[in-house]
Amino acid sequence: MVKLIALYRRPPDTVEFDKHYETVHTPLVLKYPGLRRLEVTRITGAPLGDAKYYLLAEMYFDNKDAMDAALASREGKAVARDLLSFASDIVTVFYGDAS
Amino acid sequence: MVKLIALYRRPPDTVEFDKHYETVHTPLVLKYPGLRRLEVTRITGAPLGDAKYYLLAEMYFDNKDAMDAALASREGKAVARDLLSFASDIVTVFYGDAS
Repeated sequence: MVKLIALYRRPPDTVEFDKHYETVHTPLVLKYPGLRRLEVTRITGAPLGDAKYYLLAEMYFDNKDAMDAALASREGKAVARDLLSFASDIVTVFYGDAS
Repeated sequence: MVKLIALYRRPPDTVEFDKHYETVHTPLVLKYPGLRRLEVTRITGAPLGDAKYYLLAEMYFDNKDAMDAALASREGKAVARDLLSFASDIVTVFYGDAS
């Protein structure tokens, strides 16, 4: 599977972030064509020191072509637009082959 | 599930890193008591720009107590010792609740 990964650092206002993430962003993500699974991890700590990250979202696709098509789709562009509107300064997005 | 996450930036020598990761580190990780699943993602790119990360390893446990017990175990200490020996300057470790 190919996995698209969005890693968020801790936002300044976690209540506002959570509200937007759950009520606006996640419904948009779930519309990605070809999305097989969304796994969201709420970061709660680190074995040593504090975790600088807040949330990890992982979107699974059958392969890279399916992910590329999702990103290029109308729904994918809506996800990107929304992401930039509320998390542009705290999110890092990358992808890879999961096994 | 609780997920322990190790995120690696690109190592200076990827061949050496891969060899150690696959032949030494992964066998140690797989000995964690209570480990339910290990998912390894090889990062291949980013939608915008280059990915600064190289590898994401995710270790699933039933709950935080199980993860804490694994980290504190003899096997867990061997994982930590090995991690520090080959990746201390490129790895970030954190955990959270996955759903």
